[in-house]
Amino acid sequence: MTNELEIRVRYRECDPMGVVHHTVYPTWFEMGRTELLRAAGGGYRDMEAAGIFLVVVKLEVQYRQPARYDDLLQLETTLAKASRAKIQHAYSLKRDGIVLATGETTLACLDASGQVREVPDSLVTADGARAS
Amino acid sequence: MTNELEIRVRYRECDPMGVVHHTVYPTWFEMGRTELLRAAGGGYRDMEAAGIFLVVVKLEVQYRQPARYDDLLQLETTLAKASRAKIQHAYSLKRDGIVLATGETTLACLDASGQVREVPDSLVTADGARAS
Amino acid sequence: MTNELEIRVRYRECDPMGVVHHTVYPTWFEMGRTELLRAAGGGYRDMEAAGIFLVVVKLEVQYRQPARYDDLLQLETTLAKASRAKIQHAYSLKRDGIVLATGETTLACLDASGQVREVPDSLVTADGARAS
Amino acid sequence: MTNELEIRVRYRECDPMGVVHHTVYPTWFEMGRTELLRAAGGGYRDMEAAGIFLVVVKLEVQYRQPARYDDLLQLETTLAKASRAKIQHAYSLKRDGIVLATGETTLACLDASGQVREVPDSLVTADGARAS
Repeated sequence: MTNELEIRVRYRECDPMGVVHHTVYPTWFEMGRTELLRAAGGGYRDMEAAGIFLVVVKLEVQYRQPARYDDLLQLETTLAKASRAKIQHAYSLKRDGIVLATGETTLACLDASGQVREVPDSLVTADGARAS
Repeated sequence: MTNELEIRVRYRECDPMGVVHHTVYPTWFEMGRTELLRAAGGGYRDMEAAGIFLVVVKLEVQYRQPARYDDLLQLETTLAKASRAKIQHAYSLKRDGIVLATGETTLACLDASGQVREVPDSLVTADGARAS
Repeated sequence: MTNELEIRVRYRECDPMGVVHHTVYPTWFEMGRTELLRAAGGGYRDMEAAGIFLVVVKLEVQYRQPARYDDLLQLETTLAKASRAKIQHAYSLKRDGIVLATGETTLACLDASGQVREVPDSLVTADGARAS
Repeated sequence: MTNELEIRVRYRECDPMGVVHHTVYPTWFEMGRTELLRAAGGGYRDMEAAGIFLVVVKLEVQYRQPARYDDLLQLETTLAKASRAKIQHAYSLKRDGIVLATGETTLACLDASGQVREVPDSLVTADGARAS
């Protein structure tokens, strides 16, 4: 499961070096996850309305090349693994085919009271289920 | 009622011109309101826990001089008027006595269901009460 | 001169009330200005590369209805007036035809040394020129 | 070399779950680095003015417990290793002695033209120098 999202860099996202600030990339990764869920027929807004919350428990980003204001970027978001306990995504951000950054996140699933709960069936992949 | 808050400019708050981005100032204004409420013996976190929400319905900012990364700024937040219907604050942001920006906000009060409700007694000033 | 831009609300842009934080709207207004310049045949990135900088000197926002995570919004950005001294834009943000917020900004033009300079010919409207 | 920085959580930094959004932590880490440099007798603003830029090439964050609006947090920033090629920092964010998150960053050093250059002597630790 992979989603490709086009992102236009905002002026607000750039810093005094004239490049995108490193804290912006995980915001884009989150946008990629939103679109991946939408494409899978669900939607994160509906999940939260149903009392299911996904929280980031681990984040890693590797920065290779800077992105700049007004760049048009391509973000590839992949569901790497989803088990009963956690969901892992991988990200690759490109401009004209050149990788600018890569990243990985691990999500856990909480209920409305903030307690850890099982990842819903609809999000568990075949591979993930075997691994759980 | 006035509060003075010291603010250290973050790198993330600055843009490719090397100055604080104009969208950051209202975030600082909100910090000023938080401190003003705290100094008045209340706290906005407790208000929200009690089901009372303050929302910005109008914002104005006048930008005079740029602020830069690592600057140490002084934000003066003043409760201008508080009636049963709305609360007005005024802001003055300075560096070494020089005014960099001024602003005004108007807040309304909502209940937990998002409906407009009266501003709580504790927030209504003598002047504001007369004006309401 | 008017531009219409579609905006998908990001999770990061929403606050504990579950609605878009009021400081996000001016970031969207800036995106509208970027697209308006692009549609006019120029581009703000090129302007900065040429040593011409547009800075916000005044901002006003009126908030009417909240926007929420994952909403698809329409932002209408209009060049209201452009003279030798300043450029004024007006904004209207809608969801399904309902106005959520309106705003206005005034920009001044700086050179690479941060000094005020005349607004470039290409940005001065016929109406604005008469008004200057 | 360690710096402890007190951070008051801003409303803007919290998301619809009512907790600090995960993208905010690396902004705080950057603030910790600024203060660590200041305490060491230098300052990052002066470094940039001298044409020396530090860029994040790798980021890792582990999230354990949520932080909330108005929380008063303690961020411990430690220079883990600094060689001729890169600088590594470690972070521990606590509230009342409880660790909420930990993180690590790796920085590289660029010159004004964006080319990789050696880390300045003043930033290279004895341990780091041996490791380089």
